[in-house]
Order: sequence, then C-alpha cells, then structure tokens
Amino acid sequence: MSVKNVKKVVLAYSGGLDTSAIVPWLKDNYDCEVIAFVANVGQGDEELAGVEQKAINSGASSCYVVDLREELVNEVIFPTLKTGAVYEGQYLLGTSMARPVIARAQVKLALELGADALCHGCTGKGNDQVRFEGAFAALAPQLKVIAPWREWEFNSRQSLLNYLAEKKIPTTASATKIYSRDANLWHISHEGGEIENPWNEPSDQIWMWTKSPEQAPDKAEYVELSFEAGELKKVNGQAMNGVAAIELLNAVGSEHGVGRIDIVENRLVGMKSRGCYETPGGTIILAALKGLEALVYDRTSLKYREEVGLEFAQLVYDGRWFTPLKDALLAAATSLAAQLTGDVVVKLYKGNVTVAKRRSPNSLYSEAFATFEGDEVYNQKDAEGFIRLYSLASRIRALHAKKD
Amino acid sequence: MSVKNVKKVVLAYSGGLDTSAIVPWLKDNYDCEVIAFVANVGQGDEELAGVEQKAINSGASSCYVVDLREELVNEVIFPTLKTGAVYEGQYLLGTSMARPVIARAQVKLALELGADALCHGCTGKGNDQVRFEGAFAALAPQLKVIAPWREWEFNSRQSLLNYLAEKKIPTTASATKIYSRDANLWHISHEGGEIENPWNEPSDQIWMWTKSPEQAPDKAEYVELSFEAGELKKVNGQAMNGVAAIELLNAVGSEHGVGRIDIVENRLVGMKSRGCYETPGGTIILAALKGLEALVYDRTSLKYREEVGLEFAQLVYDGRWFTPLKDALLAAATSLAAQLTGDVVVKLYKGNVTVAKRRSPNSLYSEAFATFEGDEVYNQKDAEGFIRLYSLASRIRALHAKKD
Amino acid sequence: MSVKNVKKVVLAYSGGLDTSAIVPWLKDNYDCEVIAFVANVGQGDEELAGVEQKAINSGASSCYVVDLREELVNEVIFPTLKTGAVYEGQYLLGTSMARPVIARAQVKLALELGADALCHGCTGKGNDQVRFEGAFAALAPQLKVIAPWREWEFNSRQSLLNYLAEKKIPTTASATKIYSRDANLWHISHEGGEIENPWNEPSDQIWMWTKSPEQAPDKAEYVELSFEAGELKKVNGQAMNGVAAIELLNAVGSEHGVGRIDIVENRLVGMKSRGCYETPGGTIILAALKGLEALVYDRTSLKYREEVGLEFAQLVYDGRWFTPLKDALLAAATSLAAQLTGDVVVKLYKGNVTVAKRRSPNSLYSEAFATFEGDEVYNQKDAEGFIRLYSLASRIRALHAKKD
Amino acid sequence: MSVKNVKKVVLAYSGGLDTSAIVPWLKDNYDCEVIAFVANVGQGDEELAGVEQKAINSGASSCYVVDLREELVNEVIFPTLKTGAVYEGQYLLGTSMARPVIARAQVKLALELGADALCHGCTGKGNDQVRFEGAFAALAPQLKVIAPWREWEFNSRQSLLNYLAEKKIPTTASATKIYSRDANLWHISHEGGEIENPWNEPSDQIWMWTKSPEQAPDKAEYVELSFEAGELKKVNGQAMNGVAAIELLNAVGSEHGVGRIDIVENRLVGMKSRGCYETPGGTIILAALKGLEALVYDRTSLKYREEVGLEFAQLVYDGRWFTPLKDALLAAATSLAAQLTGDVVVKLYKGNVTVAKRRSPNSLYSEAFATFEGDEVYNQKDAEGFIRLYSLASRIRALHAKKD
Repeated sequence: MSVKNVKKVVLAYSGGLDTSAIVPWLKDNYDCEVIAFVANVGQGDEELAGVEQKAINSGASSCYVVDLREELVNEVIFPTLKTGAVYEGQYLLGTSMARPVIARAQVKLALELGADALCHGCTGKGNDQVRFEGAFAALAPQLKVIAPWREWEFNSRQSLLNYLAEKKIPTTASATKIYSRDANLWHISHEGGEIENPWNEPSDQIWMWTKSPEQAPDKAEYVELSFEAGELKKVNGQAMNGVAAIELLNAVGSEHGVGRIDIVENRLVGMKSRGCYETPGGTIILAALKGLEALVYDRTSLKYREEVGLEFAQLVYDGRWFTPLKDALLAAATSLAAQLTGDVVVKLYKGNVTVAKRRSPNSLYSEAFATFEGDEVYNQKDAEGFIRLYSLASRIRALHAKKD
Repeated sequence: MSVKNVKKVVLAYSGGLDTSAIVPWLKDNYDCEVIAFVANVGQGDEELAGVEQKAINSGASSCYVVDLREELVNEVIFPTLKTGAVYEGQYLLGTSMARPVIARAQVKLALELGADALCHGCTGKGNDQVRFEGAFAALAPQLKVIAPWREWEFNSRQSLLNYLAEKKIPTTASATKIYSRDANLWHISHEGGEIENPWNEPSDQIWMWTKSPEQAPDKAEYVELSFEAGELKKVNGQAMNGVAAIELLNAVGSEHGVGRIDIVENRLVGMKSRGCYETPGGTIILAALKGLEALVYDRTSLKYREEVGLEFAQLVYDGRWFTPLKDALLAAATSLAAQLTGDVVVKLYKGNVTVAKRRSPNSLYSEAFATFEGDEVYNQKDAEGFIRLYSLASRIRALHAKKD
Repeated sequence: MSVKNVKKVVLAYSGGLDTSAIVPWLKDNYDCEVIAFVANVGQGDEELAGVEQKAINSGASSCYVVDLREELVNEVIFPTLKTGAVYEGQYLLGTSMARPVIARAQVKLALELGADALCHGCTGKGNDQVRFEGAFAALAPQLKVIAPWREWEFNSRQSLLNYLAEKKIPTTASATKIYSRDANLWHISHEGGEIENPWNEPSDQIWMWTKSPEQAPDKAEYVELSFEAGELKKVNGQAMNGVAAIELLNAVGSEHGVGRIDIVENRLVGMKSRGCYETPGGTIILAALKGLEALVYDRTSLKYREEVGLEFAQLVYDGRWFTPLKDALLAAATSLAAQLTGDVVVKLYKGNVTVAKRRSPNSLYSEAFATFEGDEVYNQKDAEGFIRLYSLASRIRALHAKKD
Repeated sequence: MSVKNVKKVVLAYSGGLDTSAIVPWLKDNYDCEVIAFVANVGQGDEELAGVEQKAINSGASSCYVVDLREELVNEVIFPTLKTGAVYEGQYLLGTSMARPVIARAQVKLALELGADALCHGCTGKGNDQVRFEGAFAALAPQLKVIAPWREWEFNSRQSLLNYLAEKKIPTTASATKIYSRDANLWHISHEGGEIENPWNEPSDQIWMWTKSPEQAPDKAEYVELSFEAGELKKVNGQAMNGVAAIELLNAVGSEHGVGRIDIVENRLVGMKSRGCYETPGGTIILAALKGLEALVYDRTSLKYREEVGLEFAQLVYDGRWFTPLKDALLAAATSLAAQLTGDVVVKLYKGNVTVAKRRSPNSLYSEAFATFEGDEVYNQKDAEGFIRLYSLASRIRALHAKKD
C-alpha cells in the first residue's frame, strides 16, 4: 500500500548510499519536498563530516543535524542497563536502543516543520523498519510512512549508483561493500560477507573498534566504576557524565580486546541472522553492574531482575519502546536499582572482563554471617527447622507413596 | 531436636577432617554402628586413595566406595545442560548437581543394609545440608537424619583435631586450612581465606585446576564438539562417553585458563557467600550448546528455554531434585533439545571461550532468506502488513489520546 | 500477493454463506478444481445436514466430511486442560483448539488428492486466518494458500447473495444475520450485534446453548468427575470417552446456566474484540480439574502450572500448535499431571460451579499435619528456624540500614 | 531458642482466648511488662467492644487500640488490586494483606514505648507467624520476638481455660469452638470443623457474612463501579473513600451470595490447609477491575500483569511486604494501572458476579476497527504479510525437514 499525496517528508538521513538515493527517489515518486534529518548518536565525526552538504547535493531542501547522545545515554541506555537486558544471552542492544531516540527526534522535527510524512532507509528484512515504524505509530499515527526499500525496484548497490549517476548526484560510495555496519556511541555492528555462513569464523577485517585478544597488551588493566542507584557516575574515581564515561571505557576496552560478540540471532520478522558486534564500554559497564547486583540484591530480587531482563531485551529489540509495558518494566527495574550504589573494580585482559573487587553500603554480604561467627543473626540450629519445613511437601508425598 | 535410638547409621564420608571426627562422635553420642559411604563423583584419585582404611581407622564398621560418575553425568549434568541452568548468571552448579546423586546412593545403601539413620558432614550455614536432607525427605522420610555440625560443640579445626587425638585416631589434617574446597568431575569450588572480603581479588593460590589466562599459551586452540539431541557425543570428531569427554575438556580448558568464576551468591538459607569455581570443561560445553541453540531454536523457544534455565538453576541449587517440578521442567527442556543436533567449533584463548563456527541439520538460519534473495519464502512487502498489525495497539492508543 | 497457477484447491467448507460463495469465486478467479472439506468437530447435526449436496451445488467437484471429534478431544482439548490454559483469564479457547485439528486434516486430504492449494473462509481481521495459515506453514509450506476475504471485493452479506444469485447457486442464507457464531463440541461463540458496544449488556437472544441463571432450576445438582493423570475418565461413576463426557456435561451445565463468558479480548492481530462464549461442559471440567490440582500439586508446581497456562493459552490462541514450544510446554504439563488422579464433586446452581468435595490418592493434604497432631512430621518448633532463615535477608538489610 | 531478659513487650492482642492467656504467661515466664496492642482493621465492633478492659483484666499494663482501616485499604489493598494478585487462583489475600499493616503499627508502638520485645499469638503451623516475624525482621530486627505457641506446653482450649482460671482472669471463651476465624474489612476466613476433610462440603453454619446463593434474592442487582488509575472512586456514581466503598459492597455482595471461596491451599510452611473465605466486596471490585483491564490493556501488558499477579500473590501471602521486590512489583503494576480509568457495571445474582457493561477513555476497543469499516487504521491485506512473517520460522523449519 503506497501512500499518496505527500507534500513534505522528513527522512532519517545518514549520508550513505541508500539514503542518498532515497532523496531524489522521493521527489520523483511523490513529488514532495524532502527534509534530511541526521541524528548524531555518536557514530563518529567521520560519518557526520559534510553530511549537510551531501543532503543538499542529493536534493534535500534542508538538513537538520541533531545531537542525541545525551538523550540516548540518559533516557535509554542507562535505564535499560538497570533491567539487565541482553538479547538472546549476548546482544547488548546497541542498534535497538538508538532507534526510539532517533525516531522520536525525527517525529518532533516533522511536527515542527508541518511535514505530512516520515521516511527511513531500512530494508524490508530487518528489525529496524519495525523499530522506526513502531515509534512512528505510537508518537504520530497521523503521519504517513514511506519505506522505499519495500517499494522500489532497486536491488543492488550498483543499481542505486546508476540511479544517482542518472540523477547527476555525486557520491563517493563504491559498488562493492562487504559488510553492512551500524555505529553509535554504544556499539558498532557488522553483517554480511563471510559471516553469512555460520560455519565461517569472522575474519580479522570485520572488526573496526577493538583489538583482537591476541593483539591486546600482555598486561592486565584494572578499572574502577562507581555507581549510584544503578547509574555509572565515576570511572577510576573521576566523576563524569554518561557520554564521556562510555567513550572512555570504549577506548580502554577496545585496547584490551573487550566486547566482541558473534551471534546468530532471531530477528523479530521471523528469520535468523548472523551479526558481529563490538560493545567494549558497554561490556565493561554491564559486567560491573552485575557484579554489584550480586552483592546487593537478595535472591528473589535477583531472579526477578533476570526475568525483567529477558522481557525487556525483547521489548527493546522489537521496537516497543513507546508502550505502557516499557514504562512498567522500567518502573520495576528502577525501583530495584535504587539500592545499586557502590564501587566495582574490573580487570581487563585480552578479551576478558572480570569483576575483581566490589563493595557497597547496601551489601547484603557479611563476612561475619557467612563464617562461623555472627550467631546473633544466624544460628546454625535454625537450619534444621528451615530444612524440615522446606522439604515438608516432599516428605508428605513420600509418606503417602509408601502407604500405597 | 536430636534424634534418638539410632542403631545403624550410614555416613556420607569423605576422609577429610570433619567426617573423620564424625565417626567416633556418632558412636559416642548415639551408641550406634557407623557405616562409611564414599561417593566417587570424580573428585580425583588423591582424595580417594586409602579412604576405606581411613574410615576403618576412624571406627567405621565398614566402608563402601561407589562410582557414581556415569550417573552424575548422564542423569544430572547432561539433562541439566539442556535447561541452560546457570545459577545467578554465573555458577554452573557443580556441587549442587552432585548432591542428589550422592544422597540417592547413600539412601540406597542404607536401605540395603537396614540402617535406620543417615548422616552428613555439612555445616549448618550452607546449602548442602538442604540438598542432602531434601533428597533424604523425598526418598526415605522414615530414616532419621543426623547433622553433627548443627549439634555438636566443636567450632574450629583445632577442636576437631584435639578430639581425634583424644580418640587416638590418626589424621594427616592440619590445624590451619585456608580454603574450603569441593571437587567432582564437573568442577572444583573454593571458599574462605582472602575471598571472604569481596573487596579482595582472589589470589593465585586459590586456583587448583586452571592456568591463569596470563600463563595460558599464546596460541589459540580450536575444539569441535558434536551434539545429538542436546547431548555431547564427540570431541574433535572422536566419539566418547560423557565422563571421558568432560575429563578431556577439563584438561584442554584448564590449559587455556578457561572456566574460572568468582561470584558473590545468594545461598538458599538467606545469606550471601563468596565463592570461586573452576569448571573448565563445563564452560566449554555450555558455550558450545548455547551456540547451537542460537542456530536451531526459534525466538519463542529460546526465550522459554531461558526461563526454564532460571527456574531450573534455583531448583538444582536448592536441592529440589526429587520433585515433580524437576520432572516437568526437564520434560520441557528435553522436548526442545530434541532438535539440538550439530557441530560447534569453539576457540580457546587465554580464558576466552568463543563460538567460532556452528552447523546443524535443524538450523533455522538460511543465508538465502537473510539476504536479498529467497523471496519465495520471504517477501519484503510482507513486512508492511506485519508492522502495521504489530503496532496496531500503539496506533489505536495514540489516536485515542489525540482525540482527548 | 495473490497466488498463481492453482489447479486443485481444498477448501475448508462449512456450508454457510461465505464458503458457499468461495467455491464459485475460486473457479472464476483461479480456474481450478475445488474440493470441499468439511470437518465434523461436533458443531451439531443441523449444520452438517445436507452439507455434501450444498457443496456440490456450489460447484465443488467433491466433498469430504471427516469426523474429527475424538482427535479434537484426545489430542488437543484434554492435553490443553492439563496446562490450565485460559486466555486472558476467561476464554476457554473453544475455537482456537479446533483450528489445528481442522487444518491438519485439510492438509492431509490435500496431500492425498494431490492438490496444490488450500483455502479458508476466515476474514482478514480475525485470529482464525492466522491459526489456519500457521498450521499450513508448519505442515505443508509447499502448498499455496488462498484467503478470499483478503482478496475479493465483496464487503457485505448482500453482495455475496447477489453473487450466488448471479451464479444460480441456491442458498437459504438471509441478507441479515445479527451474530457471527462458531460451534464445536467444546463451545459456541458469538460476536456482532449489540455486543459490539462494550457498554451494552448481551441480550438474551445471543445465547444458544445455556439457560440463563435466572431460568435455571431452583435446586442445585451435584456431579462427580473422576480423573486419571489429568484426564476425565468417569462422570458420576460412569466410565465414558471424552466426547461422550463433554456432551453429557454440556447438557447438564446448560441446564444450570453454567459456562457463559462475556469478554473483551486482545486478538493476535492487534485489535480488541468483544465475544460471548458458552462452554458449559468445559467450565465444569476445568473447575473440577483445578480443584484436584489444589489437593495434589505442591506450591512451586502449582505456580509453575499457572505460568505454563498463561503461556499455553497464548500459544493456542495464536495458532502456534505445530511448534516445538507447544511440544515442550505440553511435555511439562503432562509430566505434572501424572499425579492428577482423583474424584471431584462439583455443585451446579444457577450459573455457579463450585467444587464441593475432592479426594485423591496423591493428595498432599493431611488433616493430621494441618491440625495440632501429627508432630512426627511437623514440629511447631521447626517454624522458628524456618522463619529466621526465611527472613534473614530482610534482617541483614535492616541491620545494615541501621548502621548508616 | 527462647529469648532472655525481656523487660517490656508489646503484644498483638485480640481479646480472644489465646492472647488473653498470653498476657499472664508472658509475665510469668519473662517477668516483664506487657502492653496490649489492638489493631482495628475492620473486624467489627463486636470484637472490639470492651477490649481495653479485657486486656487490663488479663494483666496488661496498658492497651492501645489503633484504627488502621484507611492504611490497610490505601496502602495495601488498593495497591495489591492493581497487581491482580489472587493466591493459587482463588484466595483474595484478606488475612495476608492485614498482617503487614498490623505488624508495622505494633513495631511503631514498641519503638515509641521503648519496648524491647514483640509478641504475637499465631500458631506454629500457619502463615501468620511468618508474616508477623517477616515484618518484624525488616522493620526492627533489634527487637526480640516471642511466639508463645511455639514455646508453651498448652495444647488445647481447655488447657488455656484452666490456666486463666488458675490466674483468676475472667473470660467468656468456651472450651469448644468449631471454627477458627479471622475477620477484617476485606474478608472473613474460616478453618477447622468439618472442612478439615476435603471430601466434606462446607455446612451452612460455617458462613458468617454472606447469604447462600439459594437464599439470595431472585432478582439481580446491578452496581456501577468507577475507577481512576486503578483505584475505586465511586459506587453507583457516588464518590466515597475506600473504606466506605468496601463496606457498602460487602453489604450488597453479601445479600446476593457473592464472594464465597472454598479452597485447599499450600501454606508457606509446606503443608496444605483447607479454608473457606468470604470476600463479598472484594470479589466485586476485582471482577470490575479485571473487566476494565480487558478494555484498556494491550495483549503484552495484560500477560505481564497476570505474571505480576502470580508473583505478588505469593509475596503477600508469604509476608514479604517490606522487601525491595514488593516495591518493584508495585511500581510496575502502578505504572500500568495509570490507564485504568473508567466505569464498569456488574450484575450480582445468586452468587454470580458478571461484568455487564464497561467503558473507558483509554479503551483500546474500537467498534470501527473490529468490524468491516475503519480501514484507515486496519487494512485486511496487512494480515497476509503479518501471517507470513509470524509463521516464518515454522515455514523454514518445515522446508528444512522436507529436504532431509
């Protein structure tokens, strides 16, 4: 169902080949004004350099670059960390977390400019289309949505290059590109090339940020992270904001080969894909936070947090950020995380991140109780009654069975 | 409540200081015959050497050593692996899994010998007392249970040594022992010493099986594991039984610094403890199996398996092995795992275990579907309808809100 | 995407207006042979009478009526009951459970006859299209699927009647029909008419099977149900198969106004709908089975069964019957239900179903333990130790907080 | 472990036989001052009449009666309703919810008066001891706890009466009492007598508040409940506070035979018990609230709320009110319930509570979308894409299987 009568469309524009072709294609096919919207989510200066000019060259009437890094960290990444969300046991949700922030800013711009449509450059096989359009549906269902990849006939980089040439739009893109990548301050993802066969190990050229464990220094490095109510506040005793902390830990982690992930994952749209991700800083922060949880959360709280994490990971992955369920799960995780204050020292060594030391004013660990002393609080004789009641149903069941 | 009128007791005997003292203490305090029961769960020849003689020297009327290694692997470890159970995100349940096998064999012996009581040497502060007595309650509630540590007055190694000296029972135990350890073919655990302070990093002397990542070889090693229906059948193409496979992978993993875990955990009895565990082979097998799951399980199956894993980990940790819930969870996990057939190549390097390659006849991954071709199965245009229905509740909610 | 080159299609045919029109429409639009497939799932003789002739009159080349009642009960309904599945707290899944059985038989027929396509008459707004096509995808993905309601231009009963008149196909259908209904041996559902406004109470004319509570007898009736391993084996002491038992309990329940449900539910396709259901026998069986569970299941088993029920209800509702997750959940529920043997007496009175009496050889209830005696099994003093350990984390947390 | 050196104890006093005997027993056995604390949780004027004098007569140095009804409703009952918590599918947690409120007020009084111990009259076989002592541990772990029923030798009502006679303390209690009951504004519970055999139907004499369905009026009554953010604000259009609303609905519900529950339940301490409960107002409120949820919650929110309800029911039942997990679950439920605004009309008739009508400004139900119109929001053709992606994993699995 292609939409009709579009006058002004705000396009999530990256400056890459796809969105460069989308600008003229929109004008050709919808006879509309195209406004380029560029989200700075920490993808790096290289990608952002000259992006406005590129957009204008492609035919956009204007281009807005918006710095969303603090929003991304404070409103999505740090809250999500409190839930412990990791998708399918491995993926730290780097791309998934950026999408709602980008989509919300895009909607905001569209409403400010009186646009009547939104457009993104995601393919029809991936998760990102669902994340963008899920956000659009929740925030501005009255705006039309154009997804060129589900509509146009182009099916290769060469056909896009031909189209740009025909339109006399300059591009530095090449016809061959092995990997499809997506970067922000939290991670960089890689798909395509040799890893499309899960019986191939990823080659060295796939990784962009991190040294390999083999190339990492022979000497371990220790880093201290300090949290308040589940939020990272200091690195090595130095107070810093979230963006700066992640950037610092990305640098340290990359040096030590930390944060490489190689996963076959279930996409929301029903197929599996193979992806390699680098999340050096995120891997460190998550390890430290879980180390702190282990000191502070009681048993039932910790199990519940693990369940919330499973649920929240799917929710973020699926683009269900702007839903009541997200608010509810986050309320629960934030409530628990109020206790997560303390310091964790992690050891980084050739790809390993190990919690070496941890302490917290809210620690439930007590050397006195765990060892032989401290019997005002714990009397060994209490254990007998505990066990007898704890196993009572088993005993009754067995006694009944014996009677039969 | 100390039990009365015990005539013959079967003691889970290890040959260590505690159970050596328990033998004469039982005879003194209950005026009963004591039979020593030694479970061979792969703790190693060193611990088992001369154990019968030791038991007799301590005053046991007889000593039975039973090899439970195959039972442990085939009836507990391999089934548990299908559930993905890992306690509190880290602990591979080495001690927990051995307890039901030991307790069951101990009960069996007691029934064969017409004993009227069971005894174990677990302290009153730990989980193991619950695991033993939970099994006893389910299997033989009519037998009395004696837990000396909850009853006697000894409160130090020295007091036990003094008691043995007084009873003229020889022992090689020393008054000082830094760490409390428990080993079987799956793992070795360490508690006590400097790690009782979670702000201390474990020192090198704590680890017994594994090289440190720093000492591990500079060159990675690749190992191929082949599974059928979720059970490990071959290592590097070589068919072997479970015990042999674990022993082989323990050796390889230890060489590469794999499988060290340092955790603060919630004990069932309500307190926290700090433990260091080495599970080299187990860490490799679990990583490989999860790598295979990622290829084979669909999204809802995988999430369900993760939930089963959370539940099953607590169940095993808590000593609830002989319960209907265990049977039910295992039935579910076994049903899912019927698909888990395939090969996984893992890379071992200085503490890291990385899934490098995987393949399965039941793989849901299809290169054709994930990329641009394969549109008989997946049509990109299908995505539009999917997204519109997937986000329908959000759209309705937003439209309603706008009307207000 | 309308499919092409269909030669022979098997249509799930009911004899109603929609499928009567689908036969000629398929021939017109696909130039193919149409085979009518009629599933007898207990919808009643009235609906089945003359259905073959109707199908032939509509232009079907042949018509197969297959009795699926025993399959439905033994392979779907009784297993589902063991999971405790009730959708959104109320709906006993009457229509949902029939679909996989119908779709599987339809596929079987199509494969036997060498058909190359399957067709159903479900609308594009409901759940049933997903259930049919979900089964088709799992059982015969190579067959084409035709869903006329998503394709054709008819949009009212009158337009279908006009089409039949034009084709000279006789029909007794009328242009106006207030309610849309679906019946099988488990339930009858009603949608449409005044209940499309949730601020309307259903009128009396909506209900087809059950007396209203007001019209039901003034005297209660007691019925005894006997289960073995979670399956209903006897009613009032009389052994009978599942189909007969459900028919008998439908009659008794209907007389007493039992089993009316009025629900606003979330459809899988993202919208809400209002439905009224009558499940008299099912309501009685489920109440009795839950009454038995309460006597037999321990606390953790019961909670787990409740979780399985939530999951399974969505799975059945969503048409995910032919999936590994269904097998896994059912394996778990069946394992637990092995204990569910016993008798339950329910009281039926003017819409109420109340468990009055229950007994089981596997009962964990023991009068002796619950009252003051029985202290061999339960010693009140045990409770102190239990409580002290059970609340230990709270005590430690509070003691720490006090120190600050 | 009986505590020592108690100087001043605050006793949760009811005026019944047990606590009347506890006062002199405490003075005899601990040589301490005893302060009686009476919580008014809506148990009724009859129970409260003259209770101070009774306490003084028994030997208490003073008696404090505290009205906790508003706290109970606003801080426990209404929040708990938002979670949907119902224990083991039936029990509306009447006694469980009152305990934390009572225990907290008792602790508060003890701290104000400088007492050094707390005492309750719960038996050693029930849940209430855990609830009281769980609250004590969380709120005032430094205070000693005395539980006479686990300590003294009395084991019958007659022995308590003899003791009171010996102490010359007047009492109106009789030696025989069939049922043990507990009442507050939310419910009254009954245990003992003939219902200790689950094969007995409860006799008429057990019920205290409600008419039987048979005795209830022959004409139905409709009641309208209006909620804001999940909290009951009006009954039949009349604004009233929670206490008044519950009292009103108790009266109406009792008249119509509503809210009788007969359950075999798993106690936390490992045994089963049979209980009969009357919760007339609560049953009505819960039915109405669930009716509203069905209109307002989307599918994933509703499933999550059901899971929270399972968890929260155990938590409340177990006396884990003063824990971080309670705060977290409540934060989640409160977040979701922000949408629960609207009106529900329920029909009461001879024991049945039926939601007849419901409306909400946040309703996700839309007549337009659910029927044939409304295709701006829902296009039937969207369903094809939805289904194809929704069943993609099944299709891939089946295609792979065919290849083999």
